[in-house]
Amino acid sequence: MGTDRTKLIALDWGTSSLRCYRLADSAELLEARNLPLGVMRLRATGPATDAVPTSRQFEKALMQACGDWIDAPTTAPLVACGMIGSSLGWREITYLDVPVDSDRLAAGLGQVRTSWGKTIHIVPGLIERAALPNVMRGEETQVVGALNSCSHVAAREQRGGEEFLIGLPGTHSKWVDVEASIIEHFDTFMTGELYRLLCEHSILSRSMQPGKQDVDYSSFDRGLRVARESAADGAVLSTIFSVRTLGLTGALAPEQQSDYLSGLLIGHEIAAVLKLEASRRNAQHAAARPILLAGGSFLCARYARALGVYGCEDVEYVANATERGLWILAEKARLIASSPPP
Amino acid sequence: MGTDRTKLIALDWGTSSLRCYRLADSAELLEARNLPLGVMRLRATGPATDAVPTSRQFEKALMQACGDWIDAPTTAPLVACGMIGSSLGWREITYLDVPVDSDRLAAGLGQVRTSWGKTIHIVPGLIERAALPNVMRGEETQVVGALNSCSHVAAREQRGGEEFLIGLPGTHSKWVDVEASIIEHFDTFMTGELYRLLCEHSILSRSMQPGKQDVDYSSFDRGLRVARESAADGAVLSTIFSVRTLGLTGALAPEQQSDYLSGLLIGHEIAAVLKLEASRRNAQHAAARPILLAGGSFLCARYARALGVYGCEDVEYVANATERGLWILAEKARLIASSPPP
Repeated sequence: MGTDRTKLIALDWGTSSLRCYRLADSAELLEARNLPLGVMRLRATGPATDAVPTSRQFEKALMQACGDWIDAPTTAPLVACGMIGSSLGWREITYLDVPVDSDRLAAGLGQVRTSWGKTIHIVPGLIERAALPNVMRGEETQVVGALNSCSHVAAREQRGGEEFLIGLPGTHSKWVDVEASIIEHFDTFMTGELYRLLCEHSILSRSMQPGKQDVDYSSFDRGLRVARESAADGAVLSTIFSVRTLGLTGALAPEQQSDYLSGLLIGHEIAAVLKLEASRRNAQHAAARPILLAGGSFLCARYARALGVYGCEDVEYVANATERGLWILAEKARLIASSPPP
Repeated sequence: MGTDRTKLIALDWGTSSLRCYRLADSAELLEARNLPLGVMRLRATGPATDAVPTSRQFEKALMQACGDWIDAPTTAPLVACGMIGSSLGWREITYLDVPVDSDRLAAGLGQVRTSWGKTIHIVPGLIERAALPNVMRGEETQVVGALNSCSHVAAREQRGGEEFLIGLPGTHSKWVDVEASIIEHFDTFMTGELYRLLCEHSILSRSMQPGKQDVDYSSFDRGLRVARESAADGAVLSTIFSVRTLGLTGALAPEQQSDYLSGLLIGHEIAAVLKLEASRRNAQHAAARPILLAGGSFLCARYARALGVYGCEDVEYVANATERGLWILAEKARLIASSPPP
């Protein structure tokens, strides 16, 4: 198993999944696992559906996922991010207020101890106390990882700029403003969850059929264009009905409808992101700033395509942002020795 | 039962409900019934979940709802509107294209005959064949009824104008442009369905609790204000997350959250309606045109309140628009003798 090389066990413990990474020097990935042991899934199997899982349930899930790594002779430290630090998680770690940088995040790691004395370090989430507050748990670690990706750092130095817009697509996508490595502001969009709700439970689901290929990009692009051309605020409440009416009039086949809806919703999200950015920065268009995307590669590919339709050309995809971020925060917290740049 | 006075049996046969009205001269309401025998409910009880109900199932539902009216010695004609005329209904009646007026609607009534020889006249739905098409079934009848409401006709003559914006709140609300009694254009908003999806299936539902009163208008108004103040297109995808974050920060109690969300969504809808109207009419603001609201009185009260926040003052609620519309169309189609104005 080569456990002797293991320097860090990094956990991305979210709502539905527990992702585990065994990392060697320089954050080299030795092994990765993805298990359906997220916080809400443990919760659902507890004695009462609404009850928060017990420490015992979290311990059991942890050992099920990577007990062999933890029991190994060379014991590496454990660091985790995500919903595990929420009020529904193992231990609630107080949110840090933005603006915040990776040093403050590393200094703010919380701890929980297992019954056999092993410490798990937990990254705090972030809160922005605006008129409409915003929160994240896990995405702050992706931001740290994205900002420290090798190609990105090189690009930053070439460009001479230090301002980024970081997009983290997902069930609830986050868009994060970073200036001089400080997380200044972020917004949340429930696009992914709405897509799922509309596909599974709405009238639109009645005429949808699964497509033959992974993504029908012509239908996806059509949705993007409709979103871009719809001028009014809140028009998304109206344009989504076109999934049904284009279907009724034979202009959109049943197997094209889900990708069309995906393009429509992501297009509306991007339009809103760019408008919000522009009004925050008193700029005509936020597209001039470099954009980093992190998260699932298939979903990020859709977002990159959407950004292109809106004229954003300086877009980079950062892979493995979460495990990279956990590594960096562990280094900064001196849980592991700093490794020289590769 | 006074069946001798019955002049028309009017049916509003929709997706989930079958509403029946027994009407005497001058559209006087003798009796009304509301049964959970809508087209999709019949469908769900059929042998295959996806199958369209059979004629036999429709006949059975009709007789269950108002067989006693139909069997009465003085046999009044039957007229119906709604999803009963859709591809999922008893007989598909081809959509009429806008622009259209009540005369063309009356001339376009379709027919279906029961196995014992009774004819049911069915109002056709409307279609607008734009780049994003729109369809309605049932709401065209509400529009006819709303345009012919007594207080409204008097007001129209006083004002000297003949242009109206007619709002029909519901699962899928419709906003209809009427000029000189002709339906010129309409839009659909899936606001009601999204509200239900978010309250029943989304992460927002986790922290919601039912309120103690019918409507918490202070929370509803707060949602309206947030919608009005959010400038960006598609911002609704983002503002809805504030239900959760205002809850997390203790700024919105669990029992306030559903009314806040209702205000938020309706506010975004109204903002979009007014912007779409303004761009269609090249006007700064559509609020100057009289607005008629028809539909459920509780929901219309919310919409009237929202319109007020957006500066629309000339708003009138029209009760009983559907049965009034069915009466007028039956008169125009000479199914019943015209009655003198009351």
